[in-house]
Amino acid sequence: MAKALVLEKANELSLRDIDLPDALGPEDVRIAIHTVGVCGSDVHYYTHGKIGPFVVNAPMVLGHEAAGTVTEIGSDVTHLAVGDRVCMEPGIPNTRSKAAKLGVYNVDPSVRFWATPPVHGCLTPSVVHPAAFTFRLPDSVSFAEGAMVEPFAIGMQAAAKARIKPGDVALVTGAGPIGIMVALAALAGGCAKVYIADLVEDKLGVAAQYDNIEPILIPRDDPGQILRDATEGWGADVVFECAGAAASIQTALEAAAPAGCVVWVGMPVDPVPVDIVLAQSKELRMETVFRYANMYDRAIALLGSGKVDLKPLVSETFAFDDSIAAFDRAVAANPTDVKIQIRLDQT
Amino acid sequence: MAKALVLEKANELSLRDIDLPDALGPEDVRIAIHTVGVCGSDVHYYTHGKIGPFVVNAPMVLGHEAAGTVTEIGSDVTHLAVGDRVCMEPGIPNTRSKAAKLGVYNVDPSVRFWATPPVHGCLTPSVVHPAAFTFRLPDSVSFAEGAMVEPFAIGMQAAAKARIKPGDVALVTGAGPIGIMVALAALAGGCAKVYIADLVEDKLGVAAQYDNIEPILIPRDDPGQILRDATEGWGADVVFECAGAAASIQTALEAAAPAGCVVWVGMPVDPVPVDIVLAQSKELRMETVFRYANMYDRAIALLGSGKVDLKPLVSETFAFDDSIAAFDRAVAANPTDVKIQIRLDQT
Amino acid sequence: MAKALVLEKANELSLRDIDLPDALGPEDVRIAIHTVGVCGSDVHYYTHGKIGPFVVNAPMVLGHEAAGTVTEIGSDVTHLAVGDRVCMEPGIPNTRSKAAKLGVYNVDPSVRFWATPPVHGCLTPSVVHPAAFTFRLPDSVSFAEGAMVEPFAIGMQAAAKARIKPGDVALVTGAGPIGIMVALAALAGGCAKVYIADLVEDKLGVAAQYDNIEPILIPRDDPGQILRDATEGWGADVVFECAGAAASIQTALEAAAPAGCVVWVGMPVDPVPVDIVLAQSKELRMETVFRYANMYDRAIALLGSGKVDLKPLVSETFAFDDSIAAFDRAVAANPTDVKIQIRLDQT
Amino acid sequence: MAKALVLEKANELSLRDIDLPDALGPEDVRIAIHTVGVCGSDVHYYTHGKIGPFVVNAPMVLGHEAAGTVTEIGSDVTHLAVGDRVCMEPGIPNTRSKAAKLGVYNVDPSVRFWATPPVHGCLTPSVVHPAAFTFRLPDSVSFAEGAMVEPFAIGMQAAAKARIKPGDVALVTGAGPIGIMVALAALAGGCAKVYIADLVEDKLGVAAQYDNIEPILIPRDDPGQILRDATEGWGADVVFECAGAAASIQTALEAAAPAGCVVWVGMPVDPVPVDIVLAQSKELRMETVFRYANMYDRAIALLGSGKVDLKPLVSETFAFDDSIAAFDRAVAANPTDVKIQIRLDQT
Repeated sequence: MAKALVLEKANELSLRDIDLPDALGPEDVRIAIHTVGVCGSDVHYYTHGKIGPFVVNAPMVLGHEAAGTVTEIGSDVTHLAVGDRVCMEPGIPNTRSKAAKLGVYNVDPSVRFWATPPVHGCLTPSVVHPAAFTFRLPDSVSFAEGAMVEPFAIGMQAAAKARIKPGDVALVTGAGPIGIMVALAALAGGCAKVYIADLVEDKLGVAAQYDNIEPILIPRDDPGQILRDATEGWGADVVFECAGAAASIQTALEAAAPAGCVVWVGMPVDPVPVDIVLAQSKELRMETVFRYANMYDRAIALLGSGKVDLKPLVSETFAFDDSIAAFDRAVAANPTDVKIQIRLDQT
Repeated sequence: MAKALVLEKANELSLRDIDLPDALGPEDVRIAIHTVGVCGSDVHYYTHGKIGPFVVNAPMVLGHEAAGTVTEIGSDVTHLAVGDRVCMEPGIPNTRSKAAKLGVYNVDPSVRFWATPPVHGCLTPSVVHPAAFTFRLPDSVSFAEGAMVEPFAIGMQAAAKARIKPGDVALVTGAGPIGIMVALAALAGGCAKVYIADLVEDKLGVAAQYDNIEPILIPRDDPGQILRDATEGWGADVVFECAGAAASIQTALEAAAPAGCVVWVGMPVDPVPVDIVLAQSKELRMETVFRYANMYDRAIALLGSGKVDLKPLVSETFAFDDSIAAFDRAVAANPTDVKIQIRLDQT
Repeated sequence: MAKALVLEKANELSLRDIDLPDALGPEDVRIAIHTVGVCGSDVHYYTHGKIGPFVVNAPMVLGHEAAGTVTEIGSDVTHLAVGDRVCMEPGIPNTRSKAAKLGVYNVDPSVRFWATPPVHGCLTPSVVHPAAFTFRLPDSVSFAEGAMVEPFAIGMQAAAKARIKPGDVALVTGAGPIGIMVALAALAGGCAKVYIADLVEDKLGVAAQYDNIEPILIPRDDPGQILRDATEGWGADVVFECAGAAASIQTALEAAAPAGCVVWVGMPVDPVPVDIVLAQSKELRMETVFRYANMYDRAIALLGSGKVDLKPLVSETFAFDDSIAAFDRAVAANPTDVKIQIRLDQT
Repeated sequence: MAKALVLEKANELSLRDIDLPDALGPEDVRIAIHTVGVCGSDVHYYTHGKIGPFVVNAPMVLGHEAAGTVTEIGSDVTHLAVGDRVCMEPGIPNTRSKAAKLGVYNVDPSVRFWATPPVHGCLTPSVVHPAAFTFRLPDSVSFAEGAMVEPFAIGMQAAAKARIKPGDVALVTGAGPIGIMVALAALAGGCAKVYIADLVEDKLGVAAQYDNIEPILIPRDDPGQILRDATEGWGADVVFECAGAAASIQTALEAAAPAGCVVWVGMPVDPVPVDIVLAQSKELRMETVFRYANMYDRAIALLGSGKVDLKPLVSETFAFDDSIAAFDRAVAANPTDVKIQIRLDQT
């Protein structure tokens, strides 16, 4: 029995004891959880009890953005040691599946992912996790930043999929948490400049605190025109669509340069009209992103070198005992809030 | 003044004399036209007087799929000689544009393309063309095949964009002329097998005369299920969407394998609902095609080696004097017709 | 205890009983071996007792190119059934290693590979193997061909690394078994034509029995000149260097086209002078090949569709009891011999 | 007649009047030269009278790294205007060549390149140049930096060829001017950290003034070991070999990670032994670099955004009248000198 933040059903959270698996296999490590970030998907399970086909039919521990300290290692583990500060990839694939053998383990249909029904999440003081999906943090990366590697890895996946060439100019549509993560990854990944468009000025303000991220306030400003002006008429080499709205999807296609790339990151609830002929007229490449694969070590390297600084994005940190308050704060969706975190470690 | 097949306005063709530019620049060649294929776009200008923003406001010579014989070369031309049998790329870009310097001259907005208003086409006995966009045919490739390099180059562009890996399994949706060209290019380009889906059994019959092109009759058969059955449940490594219809676009996304590729070749008239979340769940890459660039020499190499045989796709050949009849045959759109050609050379 | 072909030490083979592991894990299958091919590495261990750092210090069963029939499946195996005709990938990586997670499990240093000391091979009537590295053969692919998937997969890996574009023209240097496998994979993988160069006319004769594989006899013919003549002066889009000799390495660089690709397949015993400046002047890309990853299913697809026919390359088949004679035949290295096989199944 | 720095023959420079072509074609611009950098190739022509097959047989104006101001535009020029501050790509290809159509105009054999015999360079107050190879500088980029775009573009080409993924860790061997340019491009292009190795501590000091460029002093430190230590044993994702020496070429192969990339930038005088089997054992990809193509606008974007700062690399600036002294300073090859420039504009 362990204390955990349990989603009993839609709109009902408890901080209570629950039975969780805790057997340590030979390739596993045990981790004392230090910090867990609250993700939009956690919030959505809380407020709706489901995401698409994933329905919360039984009490489920929330949380999948976590960092902590290794407290025990399995007998076959060699690259980690007790005391290592780490963060964890929340999805565990079957590494012998065809997808995994191809290096795209994120699209293995048998992935088990923290806090995706029926799999429990990590908002509990101690978890067991495969060492292969547990990553050491350098001293210069705090637990708070370590717990942000998960959302940042989505930005990294988007940046990697775009195949940015050094000096590219990018547009991000949507300045929510994921849009900002994508913008930072794109900039660290080689873009000279990243424009970010949103309808909400406060969100743009958070993004624009970073050098070379330029805000575009819609509808006051026209992203397509701004991008053409910035590129002698050429357009954005890469557009990261992170809003998932019909209007921003059209904006993405319009702002992209000939032979450019659009990365579909935002997830529209329903199928959205896409102007395929417009995409063809510029022979655009379109990439999609599903979580991430092989991005944690690269994300940590960029945090460790100081090229990416996620610290300004932690909006507030709650104690474990105040986890429900943390979720209610996240539900409130303050436009300047990027990341609410919960700290389990009391030291 | 030269005799030519002139589209006077929508629904009115004349075979008559017209003034055409015929000055030979230092980098140009003059070509006696032997054979010209009738393309769907020629037919559409004939029946509608326009395609999207391109409107026929003045009499325009039709035809852009041509082969012939070099009769004169400009002073700076070195790689072609009088008497060479050739075919011609119908689009002439500004080779100093940014797009052209990047190797994607097809998306240079200043491209001048035969039989796209206001540029005259090549259904006339002699044309002048840049040597850089004129390609020698090997002896084993007939003029009739040479005149089919143009539509085949679209298939080649689609196959190249897909980045086929040897042994891929592909699905083509739509068994019209372009769908068949794409299927042949995909097969020559490395696919082990290509499935092709259509609603019309006669069209499938034309495609299925080739080894390793397997017909799927819709709605009797379900392309997604057939592809999964053929691949131990994995799905199509590549889907070439060539029908441009909402239903086939959905089929494309459903039939594609995880981390697979969908190439949007078909051009839906209006924006079409696309299930972006479905694409994301498999992390699909989506490529688009706009004509072709750097494909003529490769297409000719595959015809010359015998790996691709386009001869069975010439449905009927008309004399130049019967050009209007040729167009009316094309308008009739017999499901087993793939390519109607017009032969100008009388020898 | 099972009967097996055992390499006792250099130059000493026995067909005798030996203890072999035969426990079936939940993700394993048991396979009755039908046919095993003799590989150059098997022969080299026989004649030299080692390959580079891999030394035969204890009796070792030879053989790693095998096909057979599933006779038992582990409790977690779902995609294979008893009675399935299969072939097996001989290298088993740690699928949780960093290399494996990246999709390049072939370069995982912890790979255990059949008949590479100290790991036993498969020249024995029954083996246990992970289901994830066991592949079903279609009915149209014989056991003899199934046992050739292993060497053909090397050709496939080379073709995949080259990133062949449809219609490429390739040169293969060296017409030994691997050179021929590479040529066939390159042709199936999209090349219009493959030239193959060797000093030995008999070897070229074997290769040239295939359509679109053109022999070049060295030194009578100059590969660089022939390739330029075949490509209007451009050169080979891809060169597969399969001889591993200083002269052929220089030939590879000379014959390659600007911006072309050279794939280093042949393994020179010692470091070889490479004209890096020549490579730079054409901005060549150079790829290397180490065995293969994710190629078995694609190789089988090409055999199953009939696009690749390996049957003419089986030079002679020996009974299991004549395994030592089979090895001595392989040692003799008859220039027209491509593959010597041993058949264990007596039905 | 115009004043220019003329290389009369090896070891003899004059600052004198010389006849230079100055006709302005419709697609050309005329540029008043402001600043010209002295390149190693300029120095090599000065001291040796030739580079490989390029021999100075007649007086030739030196200089190819230039920035200036547009003073006149040809009749067809639209994207530049009189008064624009610009820098120029020194190589002019035939944009209708096969290489150029493919987007790799740098490997078009007919390129005419400033200060490469018999083509005059730009160390003269005014030049005529194609507008397509002339690039506008933003206000934030000085002429001195504009004149460094040329060598930086080589670094950009190397970084682009490497296909850096965000968060890669790179090694550069050789801390000369090109090594530093490559390191800066790699860092801007997505690397988390770049290690740079050299035998000369002073050179490393120049490189290490930049954040995230870590010096490795050879032979005191072992680059392979340092890279493995920095990457949990994996090795460098990318190695840029910029020294062109046998030892550094071996170092490059040893330090690279499995499935990593080595970019051959340095130009060894003679063929160098390369351990191909070592490269194969890690399945390395090897890229080569020949000048650059399509890099100027991206390089300028990175300078303009402040992500790359080349200003600290200008070691000293000479007046045009002191050009010979500038060359003699460059010949002296002070290890802390990166770039010697000549300023022609007196305003």
